[in-house]
Amino acid sequence: MSLKNKSEKEEYLTKINEMELGDEKPAELDSTDLFTVVKERRSVRHYDPNFKISKEEIQELLEIAVQAPSSSNLQPWRFLVIDEQEMKEQLLPIANNQQQIVDASAVIAVLGDIRAYQNAERIYGELVENGTMTKEIKDFYVNSINQNYGSLSVEQATKIAMIDGGLVSMQLMLAAKAKGYDTVPMGGFSPEKFVEEFNVPENFKPVMLISLGKGVKAGFDKFRLPLNDILTWNKF
Amino acid sequence: MSLKNKSEKEEYLTKINEMELGDEKPAELDSTDLFTVVKERRSVRHYDPNFKISKEEIQELLEIAVQAPSSSNLQPWRFLVIDEQEMKEQLLPIANNQQQIVDASAVIAVLGDIRAYQNAERIYGELVENGTMTKEIKDFYVNSINQNYGSLSVEQATKIAMIDGGLVSMQLMLAAKAKGYDTVPMGGFSPEKFVEEFNVPENFKPVMLISLGKGVKAGFDKFRLPLNDILTWNKF
Repeated sequence: MSLKNKSEKEEYLTKINEMELGDEKPAELDSTDLFTVVKERRSVRHYDPNFKISKEEIQELLEIAVQAPSSSNLQPWRFLVIDEQEMKEQLLPIANNQQQIVDASAVIAVLGDIRAYQNAERIYGELVENGTMTKEIKDFYVNSINQNYGSLSVEQATKIAMIDGGLVSMQLMLAAKAKGYDTVPMGGFSPEKFVEEFNVPENFKPVMLISLGKGVKAGFDKFRLPLNDILTWNKF
Repeated sequence: MSLKNKSEKEEYLTKINEMELGDEKPAELDSTDLFTVVKERRSVRHYDPNFKISKEEIQELLEIAVQAPSSSNLQPWRFLVIDEQEMKEQLLPIANNQQQIVDASAVIAVLGDIRAYQNAERIYGELVENGTMTKEIKDFYVNSINQNYGSLSVEQATKIAMIDGGLVSMQLMLAAKAKGYDTVPMGGFSPEKFVEEFNVPENFKPVMLISLGKGVKAGFDKFRLPLNDILTWNKF
């Protein structure tokens, strides 16, 4: 999201952090039941700065997240995981000085590769290897993908990368909660500065930043629009 | 996704449906454990055409799905649920004649409202009502949202709607699997024709179609790119 008035945006994000949330801690779950995890996941903005999640655990969470589906199974998601304090400090001003950037154990930048279709041969070749697909179908399929995705505009390819990025991010946040951690998805950062300062390849489009850590203050109670206002049956 | 050669796209999608998947049925879960649901969810393209999921159950699934987070909690997701056979038949050619459109119990069109920010007053007003937010902070917050989101280009607003649409769609598909149903997310349809024939308001941008029903054939085994190829630590 590009915002004109950066300092106002920062103030706006800071106010959320300064609000009195009381001493309630994020829910500690005694179950990994999907419905419980969905209900208890909150956007948590206060983290224990001394709590460290290991690289192995972060990898485990990502392995779960990438079980998400994606357009033609092209898996356009790419991850930059920032867990060194110095790098988190560098990210801080790019993300409107939101305290969770430096306090959370890691910040996971979810990116979408708009040239992910170039992996089609590799992905569908694997299905020939394991006997799921004939070579003939694979060749037809990969050829179609190369033609169709290869001719998309940057805007169209970005749209697909954003949708698939959303899918994988949701699964990541649920997996984190089920493992006893908290997250907050963040759109309030400068994608241009982020790409520049972290040397992000130009075909990787930022989807969101997700802070991951041990929450110390519960997020807001959820308020959702009534289903009646957002659901239509069969035809508008 | 706009594709130049419609008939080839249809052939490409049809080949997937015609592939010999054997007689394996989708996994019946005896647990709603998040990790199990994530692992066992597949993109299922063959459904029992006689199996009907009630409107109440579909609403229940959507209530779970919308617990997803969204940009500034603006909840841009909108749903058109197509469960009448006649309307599914009308959708069929728009979605490249994919058989699951008519065989699944329902098709859920996930849409993103690029003017969802206009609900900010209502959403944040609720937080004042329940004592989470002072009126002063709410006013500042809603004003910022109106200014910031109101000045986004259609392309920028669409990008946010796609990300949030991805988040809610993932949670919907997981909830469906946990309740014993199957889904497949579909990007292979003409958004232009869909918008036209189903009278979709012009500010609602199609994210994806999701078929929902009782699967009769398992989806493919998952193949995923190795984490090493898609994960970077701290800086590119």
